[in-house]
Parts: sequence; C-alpha cells; structure tokens
Amino acid sequence: MAPQLDGYFSQVDKLSDHFIDRLAKAVAIPSISADAARRPDVVRMGEWLAAELKTLGASVELRPLGKQPDQPQLDLPPVILARYGEDKNKRTILVYGHYDVQPAEKSDGWATEPFTLTVGEDGRMFGRGSTDDKGPVLGWLNAIEAHQKAGVDFPVNLLMCFEGMEEYGSEGLDELIEKEGKGYFKDAEAVCISDNYWLGTEKPCLTYGLRGCNYYSVEISGPGADLHSGVFGGTAQEPMTDLVRVLGSLVDTHGKIQIPGIMDQVAPVTSEEEGLYDNISFTMDNLHESLGSKTTIFEDKKPTLMARWRYPSLSVHGVEGAFSAPGAKTVIPAKVIGKFSIRTVPNMEIEQTNEAVYAYVKEVFAKLGSKNTLKVYAQHTGKWWVASPNHWNFRAADKAVERVWGVKPDYTREGGSIPVTLTFEQATGKNVLLLPMGSSTDGAHSINEKLDKKNYIEGIKLLGAYLHYVAEEEQTN
Amino acid sequence: MAPQLDGYFSQVDKLSDHFIDRLAKAVAIPSISADAARRPDVVRMGEWLAAELKTLGASVELRPLGKQPDQPQLDLPPVILARYGEDKNKRTILVYGHYDVQPAEKSDGWATEPFTLTVGEDGRMFGRGSTDDKGPVLGWLNAIEAHQKAGVDFPVNLLMCFEGMEEYGSEGLDELIEKEGKGYFKDAEAVCISDNYWLGTEKPCLTYGLRGCNYYSVEISGPGADLHSGVFGGTAQEPMTDLVRVLGSLVDTHGKIQIPGIMDQVAPVTSEEEGLYDNISFTMDNLHESLGSKTTIFEDKKPTLMARWRYPSLSVHGVEGAFSAPGAKTVIPAKVIGKFSIRTVPNMEIEQTNEAVYAYVKEVFAKLGSKNTLKVYAQHTGKWWVASPNHWNFRAADKAVERVWGVKPDYTREGGSIPVTLTFEQATGKNVLLLPMGSSTDGAHSINEKLDKKNYIEGIKLLGAYLHYVAEEEQTN
Repeated sequence: MAPQLDGYFSQVDKLSDHFIDRLAKAVAIPSISADAARRPDVVRMGEWLAAELKTLGASVELRPLGKQPDQPQLDLPPVILARYGEDKNKRTILVYGHYDVQPAEKSDGWATEPFTLTVGEDGRMFGRGSTDDKGPVLGWLNAIEAHQKAGVDFPVNLLMCFEGMEEYGSEGLDELIEKEGKGYFKDAEAVCISDNYWLGTEKPCLTYGLRGCNYYSVEISGPGADLHSGVFGGTAQEPMTDLVRVLGSLVDTHGKIQIPGIMDQVAPVTSEEEGLYDNISFTMDNLHESLGSKTTIFEDKKPTLMARWRYPSLSVHGVEGAFSAPGAKTVIPAKVIGKFSIRTVPNMEIEQTNEAVYAYVKEVFAKLGSKNTLKVYAQHTGKWWVASPNHWNFRAADKAVERVWGVKPDYTREGGSIPVTLTFEQATGKNVLLLPMGSSTDGAHSINEKLDKKNYIEGIKLLGAYLHYVAEEEQTN
Repeated sequence: MAPQLDGYFSQVDKLSDHFIDRLAKAVAIPSISADAARRPDVVRMGEWLAAELKTLGASVELRPLGKQPDQPQLDLPPVILARYGEDKNKRTILVYGHYDVQPAEKSDGWATEPFTLTVGEDGRMFGRGSTDDKGPVLGWLNAIEAHQKAGVDFPVNLLMCFEGMEEYGSEGLDELIEKEGKGYFKDAEAVCISDNYWLGTEKPCLTYGLRGCNYYSVEISGPGADLHSGVFGGTAQEPMTDLVRVLGSLVDTHGKIQIPGIMDQVAPVTSEEEGLYDNISFTMDNLHESLGSKTTIFEDKKPTLMARWRYPSLSVHGVEGAFSAPGAKTVIPAKVIGKFSIRTVPNMEIEQTNEAVYAYVKEVFAKLGSKNTLKVYAQHTGKWWVASPNHWNFRAADKAVERVWGVKPDYTREGGSIPVTLTFEQATGKNVLLLPMGSSTDGAHSINEKLDKKNYIEGIKLLGAYLHYVAEEEQTN
C-alpha cells in the first residue's frame, strides 16, 4: 500500500520560505573546520543545530571528541547525536551529515557573499554549505517539522549523527562510530547518508558504491644534501632522474595501469552490469563541462562510467623535495618523494595491492642500476565500498524518488571515497544508502557553491517519503 | 728576468694582522644582497670599500644601477669602479670581485657568529663572506698597501670592478660591463677574477673554462582546473602522467643524455687533453666527501673530471604546479611545468641545443598519444666559456703560483657557470683568468664559511706576484 504523503508534501510546500530561512541561518554561521580561527563558529553551528533539534522534540547529545591531533591546543567540535522517536513498533533509521563547511572568501571569486544565502530569481541559492552539507542536514529537520505541522505521524524512529570535521578529515569520528555501533546506534536497521550529488542535473540517483584509495610514496635519496647542478651534474647519480623514470612506469596516458597484479584483482563485468550504463543520465558533454576540456580518455559514456566506477585508476599527484616554485633553480635535489594513488574497486585487497605496487616499483628501480636508495610505502589505504542496491533500504528510496520526482532514479557508483560510509556499514552491520539532494553543478568545494531551491524543497519531500517507504518495505534483504 | 718580490712578500707577512683586521671589518658588515631589509648594509659595505680604496690613493666611482627589477621600490647597491695608477708605460689589468654575501643566521647551524670573523688556532677564519668574496676583494687592496709600505713600485695600472649583487643574479651588471667595455675598462689588457676555489685543498689552480647552462621548462596542461582524482581518475588524461614520462626520457641514471643532437656538438677529446687529468690534484674521496655519499656515476677520477668539465650534463630540478608539500593530497594537477637544465660545453651552440631539446621533447610527447597540450621553452640560456691557458695572462699567473706556493698550479675548468666571466671577455675582447684564493672546503654558500689564514696571506702575495709577472710577460698571445 502506497503511503499517504499528500498532506506531508503540501505542508513542505507551505513551509518552504521557513525552510529556506532556516538554511539561511545555517549558512550565516561560517563553520569552516579547516581554519583554527573559525573553530568557535564551528562549535556555534553545532550548538545551533542541537538547539533546533531540541525544539523539534529530539533528544540530543553533544559528544566531545578531544583535541585536534595536528593542533593539540584546539578542541575538536562536538558530534551531534540525536534521536527522534522511541516507538518499538517502528523501524529505526540512522542518518549522517556534517555541519562544517569548506573555506570561502568573497575575494576567492564569489559573485555573492559566501556566508549570506542569496536566492536568485532562477531559484539558485548561493552560499557556502548550501549543498555541502547544510541543506541535506536541515532536510531531515525540515521533514520532522513538516510532519508535525501536517499532523502526519512520523513513520520511523530517526537516529542522527552530525559531525563538524568532515571537511578536515573527520578527525575522531571513526572511533566514535565504531564504539557506538552497538551503543547509541544499536537500534539502527539501515543507514542513509545525504552528502553526495546527482550524476548530472536532470535525474536523481541512488549511490551504492564508492572506490577506495591507497596512497603511496616513492622516496629516492642519494647525496647528503641538495647539490649545485653545475658542480655535480654529470658526476652524481641524481635521485630525481630515477624518480621520474619510476613514476613514468606506473600508468600510461590512456589510464592503463602498468603494475602487474592490479587488474587481475578486478571483479569481472557481469552481463547484468553490462546493461546498466546505457540508461544512466550522463553524457560526454557533462564530463567535458566538469573537466573544463575535452582531454578525456574515452569517447563514449559507457567506458567512461566504467572507468570512474568499477575500474581502478592511478594518478601521480606530485613530488616533494624537488624544486616546485616558479622560476629557475639549478638544484639537484638530494631526496625526492613521488606521490601517487590507486583508486581501488571490488575485489581488490589492500594488502595484495600494496604488495603488487612495492614489488613493481622495486623491480623498475632495480633495472635502473642506481646507487641511490629507494623506499616505497603506503601513506594511507582505504577500502572500496559496494552495497546491495536490491536491499529494502534502496527499494524504499527508489519508490520515494519515483513518487517525488516522477522518474526512476539512476543507480550510480562514485569514483571518490566517502570513508564514513564503510565505517557505518562495518560498525552497524547494516545496509548503507547514499541519497543525494544536490546536483552535479552545485560546486560543493568551489566558489559560488549553490543548492537549487527545487532540489532543496523536493529533497525535503524525498527524505520524508523515503522514511515512509522504509516503514513499509518488507525485510527481504 | 724574475721580478724582485722578497720585499713585497715580507711586507705582506708584517701586515698580516692588519690585513686580517681589515677582513674582520668587512665581514662585520652583513651585506646580504638577497635580503631587502639588509640593503642598507650592502650599500654601507660598498661605501666602506670605496673609502678604503680612496685612502690607498685610488680614484673611485660609485655607479648607481637603478631599481631592483623584482622589487621596484628598492635601489640596487652601487658598483664600485676604481683605478689605481695611470702610468702609460705599464700594463693595465682589470679585476672583478663582489662585496655582497649569501644570507647567514647563527640559527642555521653556524658554530660561530657568522658576521664576526673568528680565527681558530688552526688558522681557519670563519665568517660569512670570508672566502666569497670579501677575502679575495681585499686581497687586491692589501696588495696595493703592501707595495706602498714596502716602497715597491706597483707593477701595473689596476682597474677594479666590485659589485654588490652577485649573490642575487648580478642585477644590472651585464649592461654596465657591456657599456664600459670601451669606456671605463678600455685600457684593460687582461682580466683577472678571483671568485672561485681550488679543486681540492692542497694545490692552487688556474681556471680556464666554465660550462654554460640552458634551463628549460616543459609545460603540460589539459583540464580547466585541478581535479579530484576520485571523481576523474581513469576518465581524464592526466598532465602529470605525461610529464613524468617526458622527464623520464631525457637522461638515464648514468648521466647519459638521451636527446639526439647534443653529444654530436661536443668537441672531441684531443690527445693533449687526454694527458691533462691524471696530474690534477683531485681524488674520488674528495668527491665523496663533498657529495656526502658514494652515489657517483664513475669510479675514477678522469671520467669524473671530464664529466664535470668537458661533457654536458642534464639535471631534472622539479615540477611546478603539482602537489609538493608533505602529506597526501588526491589532486590531479591541471597544469604542470617540469624544469630541467643542460650544462653546455664547447662547441655546443645555444640555438642548436634548444632546437634539439624542443624536437626531442615534442617527439616523445607525440608518441604518448595525449590530448593534453605541450609547451617546451628555454627559461634562460648561457654560453660556456673557455679561455686560452697559454695566454700571457695565464703564464704570469702560473709563474706567480710557482713562486708563492712552490708548485705548478692545476689547470682546471669548472662545471658551473660564472656568467660575468663571459661578459667581461666579450665586452673587453681580452683574455680572462680565474685565479682563486680559497680552497674547496671553504663552504662558500654553506654554514661555517671560512677562509684559511694561509690561503688569505699567501693569496695576497699571489695576487701581487701575478701583477709583477704580468708586467714582464711578453705579449705572445
């Protein structure tokens, strides 16, 4: 039986100015987690959010996380844990979001004041944090309020986890989630995270997979100190000469990883999967636009989406220790550290991938016949994540999308990692769904970040509708 | 007829404390040209030097050079032009030195106060500028004074050119030298520069060659802005992937330049040259010590000296635009600029070398099949310099070395460039001699820079003796 949602939906529409006003209040607090001087604003944002939740009748805890590891004089902002509803006869859903934002200055090139929500006539609402992630976080609060004002029973018990350090590495959060998996979050039957984006601008999506990321350093050293290339050029073996040869051996222009033992680990494409890509709302024009050029590896949509979602990639990020400033300096760097990372996919194993990388880099270096010293190691590793899109959690979201937007959602994966996704899955043992509110053009980390009014208001409807469908879905997965 | 030098020599010995005191006064003025805040000290040093010269009876001009190009609010320090002697029957010799110094802070690791000349019991005189280049500059003044006090006629007319910006690119000097080649310097019959070092610590040398330096940038660009490797990895052609492949194709670990058309230009080794290297006072231990490691390309002295002096070398200096900080950042840089340089030797031509580099880099890039955009260009070029060591200017110095030190000097070339050498040669059309005072262990640009008392005092004798032999040498070259 389809849930009765009309009353809720019309209440959301009635309250839309109020909800935009709530978003404006949140955007006005410059909760920049990367800037120590803004830490009081981050804390103020968390407290404002907690107060809003209490006003709506939720029970709220502000959980301290201790000091910031890289700045021991600085307290981390609290994690907001909240619960709305204690009905044993209802499902319990855990949602996550973050109340901190990326840095922003008008002088970076913003057309409007970044911490003043500015709604254009076309419905675009500009402001830092509008789409990442204050809009989606407030979406949950707005859904509660609209139910209350419409007199519609809230369909589930809602557990909420809102952090204030997402844009600066989510310091301290993993430990809390792991600890509360069987504590504060123990009743959760599924998890929903609204902190990503539609693949394009036309069609909503449900996201069921993310690539992992293993980040490597290749360190080559020789001389005791940096040398003058006039005095030593031609007589000393130069670490930089070796390093560019090693880095040049990892991947080719067309993205083909040259390291044996990587592609062997990749799950084969199933016939079911083969058919998935054609219907995805994505064009090469979308990619060219976001790339700012036509320098793509593939000419077509399907291999492009497969390369982003289900195949590994290798990127060389840079070199530490060499000359990197503008101008000319005739230095022979004594020790250089090349940085590269591999985006990982099912069924790659972290250890097996590391070993393949180490063995290959050592082999390439050995062939150079160099007297310099090589070290290769992983700076950090993170596993890929893939959920079952047939789970009732996804089925509910699928129906909610169709109800609110009138279309079936795309089922997408993403090329990047959102490590908290895997942490929630592992800590709770439950299915995790990524349910985005904003679109691909929102510019989450750029100047002129925005959220379209339509995405915000229909997104509030979507979050509420999703909870209604969740309440009705049979537990078949 | 050998010049009568005993009176001069014994006067130098008598005045040695006074000469060390003069050096202490010069070292006490922190004339750091790279530091805008120290500019008044650089000017003060120039004025002090001018006053010393006037006291000795030289005519002196302080030539302003205008504003510093990269800091237009800052006046360049003056060039000191001086003349001592106007006798038409004497030869006229032009000497060059610089009165500015490298930066130095006690906290950099100096064992003594860098701007206090500290004379150890072993005769090592520590202080910034002691060997580079205040000791040699004062050497000329001390030679004048010792002649006066010994009542020995000064054997030549001396033209002097002392600049205050050598450690910061000699801004403005080339133009002045070019202009005064037929002006202030028009009487010069030969040029002597004392601003380099013995090859080792045991034996003086005369330097007759320097390598040139062509500095190149390889710029590869694609996307409109830096990208996130999670989102775009595997779908975009990455400029950094292309760049490390191009940089990796330039030279191998053993210093072999891979660019066709470079080695063809190198002058063949003559049978006369073959015999030169064995007698040079230099050991592989010297090289290992200055390198701080044993990561040399060759095991033996001769190929090592040839590689430093008479063969080109290619060094990769770094990458601009990529991630170069410590830590991990998952960026795909949109535009990266690789920097490398080639040290050039006879008979390489700048244009021919540039064309060989451009053609090769373009060919390697074309083979990658990349859609990214390549630019390759020279940031700056500088020609090699080789003088005739059989010129009377060198013969005079050779005899002076043997008289003062009791050994025949090594004839050396250097791997680095001292661009002013070539400028003087071209502006005056005369032979240029590099006649070093300090030794290889002086640490000119390092902490604990020093000049050995013996090198200073015997060096003063050497400069004076050189002028006497110059006065007597027949003009056969």
